[in-house]
Amino acid sequence: MSTKNGSTLPFDAGRLDRIMDETGIDVLLVTSKHNVQYLLGGHRSFFFDYMDAIGTSRYLPVLVYPKGRPEDAAYIGSAMEGFEKALGRFWPPTVQTASWGSEDALKLACEHVGRIISPRDTIGIEMAFLPYDAGRVLHDAMGNRRVLDATFALERLRLIKTPEEMKLLRQASDAVIASIGAVFDASQPGMTKNDLVAHLRNEEVSRGLNFEYCLITSGTELNRAPSDRRIEPGDILSLDSGGNYRGYIGDLCRMGIVGEPDAELSDLLDFIEDVQMAARRPIRPGTLGGEIFALAEPLIEASGHKAYTEFVAHGMGLVSHEGPRLTGKGVVPYEGYDEDRPLEAGMVLSIETTMKHPVRGYVKIEDTVVVTADGWEGLGDSRRGWNRVGR
Amino acid sequence: MSTKNGSTLPFDAGRLDRIMDETGIDVLLVTSKHNVQYLLGGHRSFFFDYMDAIGTSRYLPVLVYPKGRPEDAAYIGSAMEGFEKALGRFWPPTVQTASWGSEDALKLACEHVGRIISPRDTIGIEMAFLPYDAGRVLHDAMGNRRVLDATFALERLRLIKTPEEMKLLRQASDAVIASIGAVFDASQPGMTKNDLVAHLRNEEVSRGLNFEYCLITSGTELNRAPSDRRIEPGDILSLDSGGNYRGYIGDLCRMGIVGEPDAELSDLLDFIEDVQMAARRPIRPGTLGGEIFALAEPLIEASGHKAYTEFVAHGMGLVSHEGPRLTGKGVVPYEGYDEDRPLEAGMVLSIETTMKHPVRGYVKIEDTVVVTADGWEGLGDSRRGWNRVGR
Repeated sequence: MSTKNGSTLPFDAGRLDRIMDETGIDVLLVTSKHNVQYLLGGHRSFFFDYMDAIGTSRYLPVLVYPKGRPEDAAYIGSAMEGFEKALGRFWPPTVQTASWGSEDALKLACEHVGRIISPRDTIGIEMAFLPYDAGRVLHDAMGNRRVLDATFALERLRLIKTPEEMKLLRQASDAVIASIGAVFDASQPGMTKNDLVAHLRNEEVSRGLNFEYCLITSGTELNRAPSDRRIEPGDILSLDSGGNYRGYIGDLCRMGIVGEPDAELSDLLDFIEDVQMAARRPIRPGTLGGEIFALAEPLIEASGHKAYTEFVAHGMGLVSHEGPRLTGKGVVPYEGYDEDRPLEAGMVLSIETTMKHPVRGYVKIEDTVVVTADGWEGLGDSRRGWNRVGR
Repeated sequence: MSTKNGSTLPFDAGRLDRIMDETGIDVLLVTSKHNVQYLLGGHRSFFFDYMDAIGTSRYLPVLVYPKGRPEDAAYIGSAMEGFEKALGRFWPPTVQTASWGSEDALKLACEHVGRIISPRDTIGIEMAFLPYDAGRVLHDAMGNRRVLDATFALERLRLIKTPEEMKLLRQASDAVIASIGAVFDASQPGMTKNDLVAHLRNEEVSRGLNFEYCLITSGTELNRAPSDRRIEPGDILSLDSGGNYRGYIGDLCRMGIVGEPDAELSDLLDFIEDVQMAARRPIRPGTLGGEIFALAEPLIEASGHKAYTEFVAHGMGLVSHEGPRLTGKGVVPYEGYDEDRPLEAGMVLSIETTMKHPVRGYVKIEDTVVVTADGWEGLGDSRRGWNRVGR
């Protein structure tokens, strides 16, 4: 599908139109950075990438998309995005880069919507990504029109990754693992958890990532917050870090040890490795989402570690927990939605086995696994054993 | 003032209570990362520092503060902030780290508010930082209670920086300038604007900053977006970057040149330097905010550069444009509020003179200037002339 001026859209508009049809949404108002990025083919305001607050309001990008009519789409950006408009980076035929906050952005969006909407059309919004003041502007402008939450519909749109997205995810995963490895290699007893996180941040950024976070444990503790706790000889370390490359997240966990693992520690990590690999075995197009748990969970059940070991799997991409929604055990809405639906090539899964061992501490591996045409492929699959620290 | 358990609050509660009194707010629900950080004495969730999206919802921290009663305050954090709760990092007597999104966070907050609020009390919220779905939870829970926008009140609370905040701002400014200098020193013709921004990001992060953005021009262009445009011999360069140290922003602009400046370029930057320094001259406690413009603007008026030169000054801190609000010319609400109010020691100003020269290109200096007990002090005041690039 193409716009009136002949340009190709950077997303699967046929899929979006089908999803909008199924969910009864006629006109989308997309306001999250990640969904705006997706629909604009990679654009994320360089000025507002990290920050939102500006003056007494907040940056709010708005993409207006009426079902089946990309020629009537519009992008309402901040005045700071005028530079990117001048460089021709936006596909919608209507682009306004004039807003300074959430209310004026939505006023401009509503003016455009008013011009292109039909009397009985519904509006889809992102409930958690529309500020309250902007929501009141929408309400005042749209009166009795039906407003639906489009959050899950937009997540379904992003379910199957394109080859281009896959490249970015691979780059993110490889860079996170290389960074974690570099930190294990360079760390020494006496350093603090904060020191290691600062080092990891540098490593990720030097590889082109936006550092997002690092969960870290050392010794027998189960507290994963960065702190001034010092690394000591014999400590085990878990580094679980998220960093994104152009928005696409790498999120993996690896283990380190200051010294050599004893037999029990070797066994514990081998066990986690076994669970992680068992989970991959059924992965291929057509496998039902819930089957990922069919081999992994019995391994945990049969082990002596059931009381303090958990296994989860979830989709990931521009958001760290997104579709496919594989497990019914989660705490977020829609979790489990894909349990009885087949996996498809291009889905990307985060698979995590976590042991909160009451004596030895926190032992975990988190992997990123892609569903391929004939099976699976791990991204950033190295550094899986006990990484030696302080040698 | 102290809480029931005897701990001292990390902000000036007397000032907050006065501001709440003046604005008619009885109970605050604070939901922006920057104001939550301010009221919690520096806490910013390490897990959600960069990202907001989680599952199909959004991270939403909520600090509840009833006027004059810190013993009834509460912090509602994400489940991921349980690690920080365990480390004792939160002063409010009630802390719940159980939410996974915006709606459940606000439900927990409203339950607490319901227990501590009086029948006629009003509620203050941050309109642009409360998601629409959370706002509906608030509306359903609070019925006909009056809800006011507390955004400006919270900005006034942050108006005078403490010595501790000043240290962070100084560190941020110094690191931004050192990073800009390092990029000028290392850059070469043939590199792209994107290359320079990537380098600047590394430099800022290696100095402990969170990189926020870099506006960049090269040659005679006025477009400040990073792009693949290559640096060429003779180009002038402007680097205008924001980076924060523990939330506190350094935001400065310096100029570079590939080669040597000719007489006209030297004159242009000297002129901008003169305007910048003229603006500082009246700065001291008691000077009215508008007087900053009294010496700077006539210089521009009298020059031959009036048509393409602009001068602005604004407060900065945790937000890049905040109080004091000095100019009436701005595009955001409340701009000009402090024109007729006296400057006070501890205010921090961003002062910018920008020339969009129609022939020579973009020439700008942006400084950070602190109001001291007896005058002013510039933060990160070096690298002000033409920095030589490619030598």
